[in-house]
Amino acid sequence: MSALKDYSKEKLLFLKEELESQYNDYKAQGLKLDMSRGKPGSDQLAVSNGLLDAITSKDWEDDASNHSLEYRNYGLLTGIIECKEIFAKLLKVPVNNVIVCGNSSLNMMFDYITQCMLTGSGGKPWKDQQDIKFLCPSPGYDRHFAICEYYGIKLIPVDMTATGPDMDAVEELVKDPTVKGMFCVPKYSNPTGITYTPEVVDRIAAMTPAADDFRIIWDNAYIIHDLEEHGDKLDNIFDVLKKYGHEDMVIEFTSTSKISFPGAGVAVLAASDKNIEMIKSRMSIQTIGYDKLNQFRHVKFYKDVAGIKNHMKLHRNILAPKFKAVINEFENSLGKYAIATWTKPKGGYFISLDVMEGTAKRVYQLCKDGGVTLTTVGATFPYGYDPKDQNIRIAPSYPPVDELMTATKLLCICVKLAAIEKLLAEME
Amino acid sequence: MSALKDYSKEKLLFLKEELESQYNDYKAQGLKLDMSRGKPGSDQLAVSNGLLDAITSKDWEDDASNHSLEYRNYGLLTGIIECKEIFAKLLKVPVNNVIVCGNSSLNMMFDYITQCMLTGSGGKPWKDQQDIKFLCPSPGYDRHFAICEYYGIKLIPVDMTATGPDMDAVEELVKDPTVKGMFCVPKYSNPTGITYTPEVVDRIAAMTPAADDFRIIWDNAYIIHDLEEHGDKLDNIFDVLKKYGHEDMVIEFTSTSKISFPGAGVAVLAASDKNIEMIKSRMSIQTIGYDKLNQFRHVKFYKDVAGIKNHMKLHRNILAPKFKAVINEFENSLGKYAIATWTKPKGGYFISLDVMEGTAKRVYQLCKDGGVTLTTVGATFPYGYDPKDQNIRIAPSYPPVDELMTATKLLCICVKLAAIEKLLAEME
Repeated sequence: MSALKDYSKEKLLFLKEELESQYNDYKAQGLKLDMSRGKPGSDQLAVSNGLLDAITSKDWEDDASNHSLEYRNYGLLTGIIECKEIFAKLLKVPVNNVIVCGNSSLNMMFDYITQCMLTGSGGKPWKDQQDIKFLCPSPGYDRHFAICEYYGIKLIPVDMTATGPDMDAVEELVKDPTVKGMFCVPKYSNPTGITYTPEVVDRIAAMTPAADDFRIIWDNAYIIHDLEEHGDKLDNIFDVLKKYGHEDMVIEFTSTSKISFPGAGVAVLAASDKNIEMIKSRMSIQTIGYDKLNQFRHVKFYKDVAGIKNHMKLHRNILAPKFKAVINEFENSLGKYAIATWTKPKGGYFISLDVMEGTAKRVYQLCKDGGVTLTTVGATFPYGYDPKDQNIRIAPSYPPVDELMTATKLLCICVKLAAIEKLLAEME
Repeated sequence: MSALKDYSKEKLLFLKEELESQYNDYKAQGLKLDMSRGKPGSDQLAVSNGLLDAITSKDWEDDASNHSLEYRNYGLLTGIIECKEIFAKLLKVPVNNVIVCGNSSLNMMFDYITQCMLTGSGGKPWKDQQDIKFLCPSPGYDRHFAICEYYGIKLIPVDMTATGPDMDAVEELVKDPTVKGMFCVPKYSNPTGITYTPEVVDRIAAMTPAADDFRIIWDNAYIIHDLEEHGDKLDNIFDVLKKYGHEDMVIEFTSTSKISFPGAGVAVLAASDKNIEMIKSRMSIQTIGYDKLNQFRHVKFYKDVAGIKNHMKLHRNILAPKFKAVINEFENSLGKYAIATWTKPKGGYFISLDVMEGTAKRVYQLCKDGGVTLTTVGATFPYGYDPKDQNIRIAPSYPPVDELMTATKLLCICVKLAAIEKLLAEME
């Protein structure tokens, strides 16, 4: 068999008829499947159930001298020390450069950008600067883009390459003093799954943007979320920044949302002394403290970094087969037609599927009508606009394997159908 | 015995010597006592320990069809329905007008004011309006004032009376369109303990401020925090607002910080349909959802409003004797000298002590040197400035009764000493 683009009109029409028949069989099943969000499945939630038993009232009876007694009360704005120590080790930064908050790193990022808007990131408040912009490696994470859009910060797309953001473009763009920052998911990037290479991390750390209040949101969401025993390695950004004296340029975030529970985990940031001071001074007005009992629950459940890493193997055992199943189906069903490419990530939560240019929206619609919800096409690009109309973010984690396989099979049919429709239209 | 101001110089000097001797005896003990913050004591924390056992991993084994299964995952931005229902009943508002968030109502207020700054409360963003102001019934809650100060919102003090804020003053002040809002603790007000009368609530609801984006932060922090079996009654603000069609003017907040655990409770807001929509649209960018497991923990522990009210009796049994002890000591030790007045609140967390004008700072310093930390004098007023230098906020909840009694005795000595010093100085 050869590439679909080399098919004659007759062969295309014949294949189309066959695929439409398969499509209608699926449609008749009245499916309701969802591959749209990077949401852990119930099998994954179950592996963290022990967290719910990690602290009980007994912990407050056995040892009245225990200082954790007071974790029930007000105070400890930046988090409990045992929890800060674990994250400091995980992120390889000093414990004083870590703040542990509530259940959502997205919330912490939103609050940080909000702080920059109203009180500045080091210079004038961003609200008082005209036409400010953010660099958005694309495809990227829609919720990052949404924060900027909400505040009227202009989104500048930068291409994601196989090694990280297109650094030639980034280095050029930061010469503009209205460019105030950049969103990065440096490891197992959402959705392409790539990890920034040491060279890219070094070029990022070495930058001297025209705006001296330029800030990088380093969203290390998938820091230990490997799908293979030997996952990708990401250089520690703060070590590299130090080389250049640029520690103030980056705020790093991570969370246990995809380690313990998405709804009830613990989120954390790491930053330079100066940035920590600015963030703390806002936090001291914002709250008396975050939920320290949930922090303590995590400490008791995981004990240390090794405990977290061991726990991640349980997630890997569930997730890896799902990713493998989807990728196998892509290879079997799409490979020979040369109409699509896809990533084979070593970690993270997504497979990035590039279908034939100009057909992603059509694929989305066909899937939707067939009963499979995909991530909205364009969502992975600033302003929801995929210039090539070709990227589809696949989230294999949530459905059980059998549903996932059904959804993937239907998806492959739709990818082929949309490609044939396009090729036939071009023949007119 | 007569009022201290009628004492001769000789009698004052004699009494001073006696008090100084008592003061030095206390000082020699090297005390380290704290009456500064409205923080529950460990005896109060203990009554909520059952919350820690309210949900366990078993809840996720017994009934796989239970929809609470998914409370571990992402989603449900405005809170879990069972929790919203309880708070809707407690606040007497429809469930759709309630949002349950994380552990801190202060954080929710901060986020709301932030939202008003950046995107407006209904009109132009507050950041784009010049010289905006907030009314601050005083004495009041220092953390409310701090939010305004942080954003450069000018604080306008309004006198607290025995019935609520001085409404003649408020009605006059809201004629200024730069006055954008007001902070209220309508029940067991911090620190005076007074509850707004029906007339005051009605006058507040009836107001038509010149600024149509005027917003009242109705911080109902002590909604069921009675110290007596029959506590104060506060009219439901939303019922009264409805009479005037002014539902958009008020955002109500409360939390379980002083019901369950200060560090790990659940916070909630109630607002009009229009305000709920605006808040939700910000929240949908800010986070995927708050900690639903902690919400569920509270639902399982308290079950319903009656459960919460019963639980509050446990707090009352601990708190009421502490308040009584302090007030008795004031009566015995200060009463006859006519140099101070104090509140006898039916609920809340504070006793407001007015010492002789111009002596509060001196009392604070004497106490500090003697080993007792009081709330910073002036903290209960905008910009930390008490114009009469006479108000001291007493927080009796945190120390055990014996320590509380020691601290109160020392405080009374300091109140008398400072008054004598002042009277003697006036005789020079």
